[in-house]
Amino acid sequence: MPNFSPDNFKLHKRLEEDSVLITELDLCLVLLINDANYPWTILVPKRATSTDIYKLEQKDQIQLLQESNSLSNAMESAFKPDKLNVAAIGNVVPQLHVHHIARYKTDIAWPSPVWGFAKAMPYDSAELERTISLLCNALHA
Amino acid sequence: MPNFSPDNFKLHKRLEEDSVLITELDLCLVLLINDANYPWTILVPKRATSTDIYKLEQKDQIQLLQESNSLSNAMESAFKPDKLNVAAIGNVVPQLHVHHIARYKTDIAWPSPVWGFAKAMPYDSAELERTISLLCNALHA
Repeated sequence: MPNFSPDNFKLHKRLEEDSVLITELDLCLVLLINDANYPWTILVPKRATSTDIYKLEQKDQIQLLQESNSLSNAMESAFKPDKLNVAAIGNVVPQLHVHHIARYKTDIAWPSPVWGFAKAMPYDSAELERTISLLCNALHA
Repeated sequence: MPNFSPDNFKLHKRLEEDSVLITELDLCLVLLINDANYPWTILVPKRATSTDIYKLEQKDQIQLLQESNSLSNAMESAFKPDKLNVAAIGNVVPQLHVHHIARYKTDIAWPSPVWGFAKAMPYDSAELERTISLLCNALHA
């Protein structure tokens, strides 16, 4: 994956390993976690040292909020979930990343949060292509 | 707990049972979850039908962001955590509530998220009073 400027930002190795790049917004990368158990995306601000939303500069916070809105609406439109879970945890990977997870009352972890619940189930190539396409179209609608 | 106006807002019964009111901000109630395992607060926008951040009106989203910043900074100042976890899940309680949890590398659940990890351990009255006082002072500093 390329080294995204500005600010010498480089995606954390663990996030890179676990995900596929969907698109790049003004502030954030949009990544899809390679886990077919749930449509699960993350926003990663392209800021080299960011760890927490409240530590970002104010203009970046507002931009992150707008991009989170866009992604949330796109996920609702693309995946019709029963609930969207939005979270900045970061206990394992310190680089700021904001989870957006489409949840269903029928999914494997419901109603628990997804972290640590089930082993990731990688997409097969057709399902991955379909999921990326759905999300991209919704993001750019 | 009183019925907080405007908008016929009423705190969800489950949130009321699990928490103590710390203070009321312009948009949100600040509640402390009665679990001494971690300093754990939630912001609840006083909007009767809110379920998700991205579904709030834009001005409420900005206000929520500001109040989340204030609470995050207060928690950092009061509790000196190793990491703050911020999350809107809502699979069980649909009323929008945003968790702010001070985490330590030595806490019972680290590095897992807290939900569903350990049974809540209610504060004793002295520790509850001390925690509320620390948080209130930091919020109003």
